[in-house]
Amino acid sequence: MPVTERYADATAELQVTSESLTVALAHRSVRKFTDAPVDDDTLHAVIAAAQSAPTSSNLQAWSVVAVRDPQRKARLSALSGDQQHIVDAPLFLVWITDLDRAHRLAARAGVPLDGANHLESTLIGVIDASLAAQNAVVAAKSVGLGTVYIGAIRNHPREVAAELRLPPHTVAVFGMAIGTPDPTEDAGIKPRLPQSAVLHHEVYDTERADADIPRYDAAVEEYYGRFGLTGNWSDRVLARLGDTAALHGREKLRDDLEHFGLSTR
Amino acid sequence: MPVTERYADATAELQVTSESLTVALAHRSVRKFTDAPVDDDTLHAVIAAAQSAPTSSNLQAWSVVAVRDPQRKARLSALSGDQQHIVDAPLFLVWITDLDRAHRLAARAGVPLDGANHLESTLIGVIDASLAAQNAVVAAKSVGLGTVYIGAIRNHPREVAAELRLPPHTVAVFGMAIGTPDPTEDAGIKPRLPQSAVLHHEVYDTERADADIPRYDAAVEEYYGRFGLTGNWSDRVLARLGDTAALHGREKLRDDLEHFGLSTR
Repeated sequence: MPVTERYADATAELQVTSESLTVALAHRSVRKFTDAPVDDDTLHAVIAAAQSAPTSSNLQAWSVVAVRDPQRKARLSALSGDQQHIVDAPLFLVWITDLDRAHRLAARAGVPLDGANHLESTLIGVIDASLAAQNAVVAAKSVGLGTVYIGAIRNHPREVAAELRLPPHTVAVFGMAIGTPDPTEDAGIKPRLPQSAVLHHEVYDTERADADIPRYDAAVEEYYGRFGLTGNWSDRVLARLGDTAALHGREKLRDDLEHFGLSTR
Repeated sequence: MPVTERYADATAELQVTSESLTVALAHRSVRKFTDAPVDDDTLHAVIAAAQSAPTSSNLQAWSVVAVRDPQRKARLSALSGDQQHIVDAPLFLVWITDLDRAHRLAARAGVPLDGANHLESTLIGVIDASLAAQNAVVAAKSVGLGTVYIGAIRNHPREVAAELRLPPHTVAVFGMAIGTPDPTEDAGIKPRLPQSAVLHHEVYDTERADADIPRYDAAVEEYYGRFGLTGNWSDRVLARLGDTAALHGREKLRDDLEHFGLSTR
């Protein structure tokens, strides 16, 4: 049962189910792909699903660049912490927060676009891209493909922008390696926080939220141990966020966004 | 065929399909609900799907507050542009960008959390919440429920935080009304931009991206006309982003985030 693995809790169960829920619960990121290509028909279907996601005021403030060129993938991998699965995946999608389409409309119409000049509008582009991309993940899975998000595409935003010839008012917000899962990959369903830690009723309840974290830490430590890794969840959160150095350049993101003409005001 | 409606193009077709793709293509937001409640079993299933979405470094930098209290829903509706569907929906989910869980871990461990003090970490919380919420949309649909995102929850972030007793290092990033769709609602599948406008190959191609927008403008105008509304897509984008006044308070989001201890640096 995916739900027992998802919560690393043999007693976990769902009283309500559907095929879609079962698939969602069994999600795992795929980092090892076969050589099978992802053809254009499949890409078009996945992007049609992405476009069908909700978007703030129908602004559709995102774009996506599909990269298949092995050399370009290799360069993007080098800019994203040398992740081999970017090179190995037949298709690498770079999801773009895109306010330039609106800026181009305004320029052609000769009218101002003052509302775009606020952090709020940049965030709309980040949220729109995220909702679209997650629909793509679900759609890809439904046609037998696996995916993994690449946040490290934000390590070097200016170099990525040059590589993809991005116009101003855009930023590569995350990448996504996509391909046919290699069945030999040794990976499981990663346990998530107990539902009590994230779901609140009527008001936020800090005490209840944190009560089960020690149990979760033990479950995560056991899970990582299966793959020869050490540490529990709390250790890893503190290692990831404790020190600015772990951001690998992303601590300069505000400067990069302003450089691109994406407001952080 | 959902794809012809999605692109407002009678010749549009997908060469690759799946049940999940068909459902995704047919998505529409629901703003009219029956009185049927959403029970806890269903809520737990939807949130389990949300938690199964990818999350940056397994940080799970989000929470969600489930609001059913009619008075609280009414107050949140008043803070979100008086949207009646927030009052009418049996369940209103407020999705939270949550770095406070990590801050509480760090405080208990007596260690710094310097990496959280950058816009990048705030963005991780926004992206994590977005991926989780979109999984919830798909899961809700699979058990017969409809949803609509409420970006206007960002109109008055401090009042919303007080209402939901949010701790520091958190912000309500969007709401989501959820319930059983009222079959009498007069709504369609909203046409999206032609795929050529959002999907680029290898590099971003501005000219190709904008070539079909006039045709899309005509299709959107026809679509809105069916519901007695006027204007094309370009008109609406320029109205929405042309003037800061259309942000309804969200132009102060950076100040609000800093007030909450969510870095925009």
